Amino acid sequence: MLLHQSTWIEIGQFLERSRSIVIPIGSNEQHGPTGLLGTDWMCPEIIAHEAQKNADILIGPTFNIGMAQHHLGFPGTISLRPSTFIAAIGDWVRSLAGHGFEKILFLNGHGGNIASIEAAFSELYAEASFSGRPSGYALKLCNWWDLEGVNELAYQQFPVGHGSHATPSEIAVTQWAYPDAIKSADYSPQIANTGPIREARDFRARFPDGRMGSDPALATPQKGGELVALAAKGLVKAVETFSSEPKPS
Amino acid sequence: MLLHQSTWIEIGQFLERSRSIVIPIGSNEQHGPTGLLGTDWMCPEIIAHEAQKNADILIGPTFNIGMAQHHLGFPGTISLRPSTFIAAIGDWVRSLAGHGFEKILFLNGHGGNIASIEAAFSELYAEASFSGRPSGYALKLCNWWDLEGVNELAYQQFPVGHGSHATPSEIAVTQWAYPDAIKSADYSPQIANTGPIREARDFRARFPDGRMGSDPALATPQKGGELVALAAKGLVKAVETFSSEPKPS
Amino acid sequence: MLLHQSTWIEIGQFLERSRSIVIPIGSNEQHGPTGLLGTDWMCPEIIAHEAQKNADILIGPTFNIGMAQHHLGFPGTISLRPSTFIAAIGDWVRSLAGHGFEKILFLNGHGGNIASIEAAFSELYAEASFSGRPSGYALKLCNWWDLEGVNELAYQQFPVGHGSHATPSEIAVTQWAYPDAIKSADYSPQIANTGPIREARDFRARFPDGRMGSDPALATPQKGGELVALAAKGLVKAVETFSSEPKPS
Amino acid sequence: MLLHQSTWIEIGQFLERSRSIVIPIGSNEQHGPTGLLGTDWMCPEIIAHEAQKNADILIGPTFNIGMAQHHLGFPGTISLRPSTFIAAIGDWVRSLAGHGFEKILFLNGHGGNIASIEAAFSELYAEASFSGRPSGYALKLCNWWDLEGVNELAYQQFPVGHGSHATPSEIAVTQWAYPDAIKSADYSPQIANTGPIREARDFRARFPDGRMGSDPALATPQKGGELVALAAKGLVKAVETFSSEPKPS
Amino acid sequence: MLLHQSTWIEIGQFLERSRSIVIPIGSNEQHGPTGLLGTDWMCPEIIAHEAQKNADILIGPTFNIGMAQHHLGFPGTISLRPSTFIAAIGDWVRSLAGHGFEKILFLNGHGGNIASIEAAFSELYAEASFSGRPSGYALKLCNWWDLEGVNELAYQQFPVGHGSHATPSEIAVTQWAYPDAIKSADYSPQIANTGPIREARDFRARFPDGRMGSDPALATPQKGGELVALAAKGLVKAVETFSSEPKPS
Amino acid sequence: MLLHQSTWIEIGQFLERSRSIVIPIGSNEQHGPTGLLGTDWMCPEIIAHEAQKNADILIGPTFNIGMAQHHLGFPGTISLRPSTFIAAIGDWVRSLAGHGFEKILFLNGHGGNIASIEAAFSELYAEASFSGRPSGYALKLCNWWDLEGVNELAYQQFPVGHGSHATPSEIAVTQWAYPDAIKSADYSPQIANTGPIREARDFRARFPDGRMGSDPALATPQKGGELVALAAKGLVKAVETFSSEPKPS
Repeated sequence: MLLHQSTWIEIGQFLERSRSIVIPIGSNEQHGPTGLLGTDWMCPEIIAHEAQKNADILIGPTFNIGMAQHHLGFPGTISLRPSTFIAAIGDWVRSLAGHGFEKILFLNGHGGNIASIEAAFSELYAEASFSGRPSGYALKLCNWWDLEGVNELAYQQFPVGHGSHATPSEIAVTQWAYPDAIKSADYSPQIANTGPIREARDFRARFPDGRMGSDPALATPQKGGELVALAAKGLVKAVETFSSEPKPS
Repeated sequence: MLLHQSTWIEIGQFLERSRSIVIPIGSNEQHGPTGLLGTDWMCPEIIAHEAQKNADILIGPTFNIGMAQHHLGFPGTISLRPSTFIAAIGDWVRSLAGHGFEKILFLNGHGGNIASIEAAFSELYAEASFSGRPSGYALKLCNWWDLEGVNELAYQQFPVGHGSHATPSEIAVTQWAYPDAIKSADYSPQIANTGPIREARDFRARFPDGRMGSDPALATPQKGGELVALAAKGLVKAVETFSSEPKPS
Repeated sequence: MLLHQSTWIEIGQFLERSRSIVIPIGSNEQHGPTGLLGTDWMCPEIIAHEAQKNADILIGPTFNIGMAQHHLGFPGTISLRPSTFIAAIGDWVRSLAGHGFEKILFLNGHGGNIASIEAAFSELYAEASFSGRPSGYALKLCNWWDLEGVNELAYQQFPVGHGSHATPSEIAVTQWAYPDAIKSADYSPQIANTGPIREARDFRARFPDGRMGSDPALATPQKGGELVALAAKGLVKAVETFSSEPKPS
Repeated sequence: MLLHQSTWIEIGQFLERSRSIVIPIGSNEQHGPTGLLGTDWMCPEIIAHEAQKNADILIGPTFNIGMAQHHLGFPGTISLRPSTFIAAIGDWVRSLAGHGFEKILFLNGHGGNIASIEAAFSELYAEASFSGRPSGYALKLCNWWDLEGVNELAYQQFPVGHGSHATPSEIAVTQWAYPDAIKSADYSPQIANTGPIREARDFRARFPDGRMGSDPALATPQKGGELVALAAKGLVKAVETFSSEPKPS
Repeated sequence: MLLHQSTWIEIGQFLERSRSIVIPIGSNEQHGPTGLLGTDWMCPEIIAHEAQKNADILIGPTFNIGMAQHHLGFPGTISLRPSTFIAAIGDWVRSLAGHGFEKILFLNGHGGNIASIEAAFSELYAEASFSGRPSGYALKLCNWWDLEGVNELAYQQFPVGHGSHATPSEIAVTQWAYPDAIKSADYSPQIANTGPIREARDFRARFPDGRMGSDPALATPQKGGELVALAAKGLVKAVETFSSEPKPS
Repeated sequence: MLLHQSTWIEIGQFLERSRSIVIPIGSNEQHGPTGLLGTDWMCPEIIAHEAQKNADILIGPTFNIGMAQHHLGFPGTISLRPSTFIAAIGDWVRSLAGHGFEKILFLNGHGGNIASIEAAFSELYAEASFSGRPSGYALKLCNWWDLEGVNELAYQQFPVGHGSHATPSEIAVTQWAYPDAIKSADYSPQIANTGPIREARDFRARFPDGRMGSDPALATPQKGGELVALAAKGLVKAVETFSSEPKPS
């Protein structure tokens, strides 16, 4: 069930049978010479939308701009500062909690978001801790590649050249979902180098075409489809597990 | 051209021929007994995506959560506070300006966003004014219903019962784009009442099913298609006019 | 009754018979070659102070600095950023609400304030909406020129050359109240041009003497007096209407 | 010269002969059973307006709401939080500095403002210190009672019962300027008690009628006039001394 | 009793017999050619740690970075902006208040902190005042040199050349506690000049070696020991007095 | 070399031979029935102070309060919210960068700090990325247990019952440094349970004595000494490696 394609009455009815919701969250940032700028928000959206076809889970709108300051040296990247990101996640959660959602799972598509999302959770929890009133909700961050079996499949599909940015696995997922937007380009070296992540200017100097440790040419729509299918199952299971935890006191 | 389905290299090439971009912006909020929660961000997204099929304009990712505090009394609504909204628009603009975009047009789908978006523009301009350094960009807010001819068509299509929230015109647009998500419901009175907009609790008391002055049952996918076609043309024209203004000094 | 010329005991007594207050709010900004920098806060102050002479309404201190970033290119302009403006309006309202005021009417004298004031109202309401506790108050923005009959009179007085900034009507109001501060200057063209409002540098380039579409030489103290008399009556009526609304739930 | 009764052109001319400006700053807060709520912003305004009659100094608009959280237990008090106060002072200073003012003197009327005003100055200076670029201005806080000879005169006028809040000296100043707003009331004890200042609830419990250590019935308009005359002279001198300091490097 | 060398269970037990805590607070900033950068946080820490040896008082961790923007022109200085300082003090107080501490005494070692600490107190109190709920705690700022008899001793020890920054008294205190870190240097003039405190660049120009009005060579470890002994006694007394005030309502 | 026991002149001299600095950073929070509240800031301080005895590295003051909202249910815990933590780290870094430090290594003692520290780094880098001006510095987060060989030693010392909070390794480190503050207590189960970290109320319910997965009774001062010796060597090496990276462009 997609929240944005539902009426408020339908969401009210859903809340009578479940207090859980999934928010796809990612980033809009360069993904190397062939990856789409939307890769990191499209992947969790694709997986979450797929998952709800076969399970009674609720998927919220996609939080599509995250913390990508290090990619700002490449055209098309849009980034929030961590402080803005924390404020925005806060308002999403306050809105959802006000409706009675008790388990809010963020399905994340961008490694660079992790620290800021966890900081956002702590900011919200601290609000409760300082006020002495329980928040009434639990928050969970789940990277799509950490869903059951997904990383294993990805490394089996791409034993060499997976890397950590503009990876063949994430690009394969978008190829499966948007076959009309498959891109190709020459690049070298075939497998990009790696290194630390700092500010945008430094990043572009270290990683001239935007890839980190990856060879995205390995991606195929079929492999993407396999990843989506497995991840969608994993997401349903993760939601079930999270939902079955006792209500936050 | 959709930014999120492009590579950074393609955006770099686009910037050589144009410095303009369109950001669909809306809200995720209740739209009465039959309207979709995503109506206000889906409308500008639908129109902008349609427009770029026939013109070389660039559409960014959709800014899907806006200022909808007054709708928080209805399940499924997600709102940013104005201060968060201003911060987030700021980071979007700073990101885009850093790439060289000089004309940033926000195609808006939610009346409740207008004040906060204009405040966000002033916040950004003030940053430049206080620093004594020009920002290098111009910002424009354009509601989709204000595009050339659109309001006229809507009032011709719905001479009675258009209203101001959960209107048949916006619902028709989503019906055209998402025919599988057309909803129906009984409601009364046929045309909802009107009144001032204050906080969420007051809003729900005044407008029990969420509509303001509207009869959304008048919507049809066909009328939605007519609106989209006209609005898409209007958007292309608005972008052209904006782009032809001299570069901000 | 002027709050700042009252004791706290007198205000306590007023609160036993009314829960309404008027806050004149404006801006301190250039008003063309002959307009006073204080025009936009002096006008609502003049009207509100006049109105309370003949009615039992309470006028608070004047909020004299607003959102005027676009005028910062002209000496003497003082502006808050929207974020600061929102924070300050918030503290005024929280202070007044703490005393039991339930209807707070801002009588505004500056078009450039409107978006930020409305954003401030939403910020306050959102605080209540997120907390799940009603705010207990209603907020109203009222531009002095929108008071009953005022715009009609102004356009009757100045059928040509009224414009939108440094208008003869606002300058006439200050001439009536401060006849010793009437200024004159040569300028051309007689009626200033118009255009969009962006950052300060751009504004000064477009509107070299600060006027927008106006010919302020048309102003006379007598016409100002007529405007004040009508606006003062309109304000009393607006307060009565607002006060007669049911107490916010 | 009053800034708000001048045109931008006149301020531009003033800046050619001086880079100094005086901002009256105070608070709107309870002042005991007979003191006006506006006492603390009216006093510096009265003195500054008087001073500019006999000297070529520039007086800005009055910053009329300050840090008065401890008085919020009494009707009519309006307070900014320190964080809001700091932000607002910041924007006033940034605006004025942008026009070329180099010496900005805040003539203060409220002891409770001092810490927050000094914190605001440090916030502004820190902005410069962190950026490595000089601010170009110097800021000075001057309480009107600390102007040359004023405290001495006040203690000579009121050797007993001066106290620290709702003092006969400040009330005398407003009596001189606003003789129609002189109030009287019975109160006891004749001289109020003293104690620490904490939050509003505590303040009202300690100081039931709002006075601290004072007997405001000692005030007379004539004594107020003597104070104003002396303070106005002192202000002119303070501005001269401050202006004669070398331009900030 | 040192909080950081206690377990949470021991603090729980302490709270059963006392609701008071002392937080040493200072600054890390240049202290002239011979003073340690840590002087201003080490002094209150030394005194507080000494005091708890002979009395059942609780000393929290040292808040070691304060408001020292004016010293940023000298290597090694670390400063918070006032706004950051206020936020951080706020979180310390909210944490301690949550455990039931009702009397929180900040033992301060840096004059430049005073305004920001008092602003922080007001910010916290305002939170309570605006919410209408009592905070439940009282806050007290106490400079170590203002403890009973300390200033008198310092001026008796150093009748000439005490000054206001890099004073022989504060340097003596650190010499007593850290005899291995006693420094010496030639400087002139023997007694440094004085002047106003503004931004960092201006400060360094006025006070080239960092001293203000002082001759730190007068310091000896023995004089430091005398000051510590007296201040430690004064602190115990100040805590007793503060603790004996009625519980905040 | 300890910054706080140095003069500004000594730091100026250090900067001529190195542009690197180490900041010990931790948290003040409950550490189970026997762990000291200061454990997490004392460990990196102990290690860093030890390391500088044998190498020419510079250690800054200890940042002793971090992000520990989940421990606020236990007396003595003091926590910053992530937003405050980010602001404060920002001001430390801006201060140090202003003096010319180019490599700032935070030696961290608290797992709960990691996300917020990384978010703080991104906030600072984003400031540079948005401004288009390079920051001039590189930031590095290093947990003391991740220094070369340390984790291995800890798991060798404590093959069972190490856990993740109130671990025998961190407690051993404080026992070695503060033998007078060694505590003992009975607790059960011998090895605490584990689980997710959420808000403070939930944390205390899950982990009643504060431990997570650990048996701190295994700690001995001798094992602590071994850990400190190894970590100190590891820190010197980490600083060398970081320092040898090219200057940030």
